Amino acid sequence: MLEPLAHIGRDPKTGGYLRDAWSAADLELREWFAGEAGRRGLGLREDRNGNLWAWWGDPSPGRPGVVTGSHLDSVRQGGAYDGPLGVVSAFAALDLLKDRDISPSVPIGVACFTDEEGARFGVPCMGSRLLTGALSPDRARGLTDDSGDTLADVMKRTGRDPAAIGRDDETLAAVGTFVELHVEQGRGLVTEDRAVGVASAIWPHGRWRLDFRGRADHAGTTRLADRDDPMLPFARMTLAARQAAERLGVVATVGKTRVSPGNANAIPGLVSAWLDVRGASERAVRELVAELAGLATETSEESWTPVVGFDAGLRDRLARVAGGDTPAPILPTGAGHDAGILATAGIPSAMLFVRNPTGVSHSPDEHAERADCEAGVVALADVLEDLCR
Amino acid sequence: MLEPLAHIGRDPKTGGYLRDAWSAADLELREWFAGEAGRRGLGLREDRNGNLWAWWGDPSPGRPGVVTGSHLDSVRQGGAYDGPLGVVSAFAALDLLKDRDISPSVPIGVACFTDEEGARFGVPCMGSRLLTGALSPDRARGLTDDSGDTLADVMKRTGRDPAAIGRDDETLAAVGTFVELHVEQGRGLVTEDRAVGVASAIWPHGRWRLDFRGRADHAGTTRLADRDDPMLPFARMTLAARQAAERLGVVATVGKTRVSPGNANAIPGLVSAWLDVRGASERAVRELVAELAGLATETSEESWTPVVGFDAGLRDRLARVAGGDTPAPILPTGAGHDAGILATAGIPSAMLFVRNPTGVSHSPDEHAERADCEAGVVALADVLEDLCR
Repeated sequence: MLEPLAHIGRDPKTGGYLRDAWSAADLELREWFAGEAGRRGLGLREDRNGNLWAWWGDPSPGRPGVVTGSHLDSVRQGGAYDGPLGVVSAFAALDLLKDRDISPSVPIGVACFTDEEGARFGVPCMGSRLLTGALSPDRARGLTDDSGDTLADVMKRTGRDPAAIGRDDETLAAVGTFVELHVEQGRGLVTEDRAVGVASAIWPHGRWRLDFRGRADHAGTTRLADRDDPMLPFARMTLAARQAAERLGVVATVGKTRVSPGNANAIPGLVSAWLDVRGASERAVRELVAELAGLATETSEESWTPVVGFDAGLRDRLARVAGGDTPAPILPTGAGHDAGILATAGIPSAMLFVRNPTGVSHSPDEHAERADCEAGVVALADVLEDLCR
Repeated sequence: MLEPLAHIGRDPKTGGYLRDAWSAADLELREWFAGEAGRRGLGLREDRNGNLWAWWGDPSPGRPGVVTGSHLDSVRQGGAYDGPLGVVSAFAALDLLKDRDISPSVPIGVACFTDEEGARFGVPCMGSRLLTGALSPDRARGLTDDSGDTLADVMKRTGRDPAAIGRDDETLAAVGTFVELHVEQGRGLVTEDRAVGVASAIWPHGRWRLDFRGRADHAGTTRLADRDDPMLPFARMTLAARQAAERLGVVATVGKTRVSPGNANAIPGLVSAWLDVRGASERAVRELVAELAGLATETSEESWTPVVGFDAGLRDRLARVAGGDTPAPILPTGAGHDAGILATAGIPSAMLFVRNPTGVSHSPDEHAERADCEAGVVALADVLEDLCR
């Protein structure tokens, strides 16, 4: 199913994907999306925040649609399924509805949200956060990537207008319900022995930057006693994060660091570490961050998403419809998604998960079996049919 | 004295220097060198390895010269003095000899060695190592910078011939004696209350890359128990390096790391750390590296320089001549230098150090007082005059 996208932004050495928002790969994926919409006679729109919408039927303020979709960008060296599976399945589910001769009573939309992973500018779900007003346009415009380019620079370069980003009530009003299909990023469905499940909630989660300042100096001539080496408190924090996570029952990860100036023959002056923390209990997450902040020179919150409980009625309806004879299992997740951002903004939202045999995600090893992906499309089509009755 | 170079490759935000070998800044510095040579009527040569030589008088196989100089490249965010002070002082000392109406009995050369810091390709003293055959041309050509460009690519781009690099006996034969003046990278001269000192030896030192392999996975959905997170053994190694260094009486530094893929929301698959270790005892250095290698998946030696004891007769002659009434203090150092590479290759070599009030080096805070720099020039001129008698 993902074959047409398989070559885009793929690192031939690792098989991982490099699909940063607004990169050449991302633009190629957007072109692919436009082509899929065109081929089906869907109406294509790009909103002010760069999110793409392909509509079957025309939503209007009094007649919002049922929307499905996900995102096409990836983490760096990511897998093929995280995001694209939801977009590809959305188009495939529409095809299935047409094969079934369904005439939906409300418009159906396929969405592709911009920069869900936040790999380039550090803030995940940028497209849906801007759309719903959860992220201030001023802050977003000023975010910089590794080359020092701001989002504003990058949007301008691709012909977009960074002055226009921000909350977009008109676009939001068209979304009556949102259902996101996603590859599972854990092994819940393997345990349940089911191909498709439904999300109950997204754990509260956030991302913090911890800066450790020291004094840059010569690696050969500076006595140990005279050193102020920020690599040491950084290392202590990294080990303390794991211990505190175990104690508090949350997960904590340091997946990105920046060592300045980064000379092999010099003590660094600054080490920055990005700390990702998630867990069922917001209190436990906050406690861990407060503990670790004590080891850093400075700590700043880059993003925070409170617990998202998806609409219970919608969730149960999905579980019934998608499950066939036995309702689909209902699973919590530690992963953030655009569906969570829309739910928090008050749009009835839900998620379908497709089984991941190893549970591995954000890695080239991420996988889903073809039969499970096809079961996902059928479940999504059933859900859309039910919601559009 | 360094004013004409002050703007080249300077980061206006930090005041630190970014003078990678073969960068635009480095090419500008080479042009400056050529200009200084031309202004004084010196004969300019660039050898096959990119080292620059400005000759007062013409050396011939049977009549080698006395050479002084240093390098113009910098570590990233380096100081103004490390390298350039030696080159600028060399030209200034020649001027002083001319003012004194000296007619040297042998040619005097000013040298500028290429890529002393190894900031770009990871191997320090690249120019002098290639010149003396201490580094294989094949290995050098294949070294890559952070953009993935090889030394061969980069040399070609600047019009040099990478096929021609390697041991250069003709150039070496012209160097009878080498004296490098350098800012001190410690506080030995502060303790001695002297402006100028002489090097006794360079500690054995090396650079190793330690790779920690794990499994890239999702930061939110992967249970702690299921993780294989390479950041943890990396952090343990960093702390162990400090403890072992204290125990063994050496210095050990992790100044550069690479985290792959480097997503804030993913467990990394690979962490690489560069470990710089130096000390008076080679055995202690080797013991530390062996201990730490046990914590890594894989360890490779990127460079190794055995202890360099400078020529004792030359050292004492310099101390006498440069010291005035009281011989200049003789100090060991943990910093590598081109003078050490030449000494190892059998060329009588020596070093003069100029006082550094804070001892800080490889940092924008590196400093030397103007009066001390001037004293360095006088000492160097005295030494050259003595050696050319």
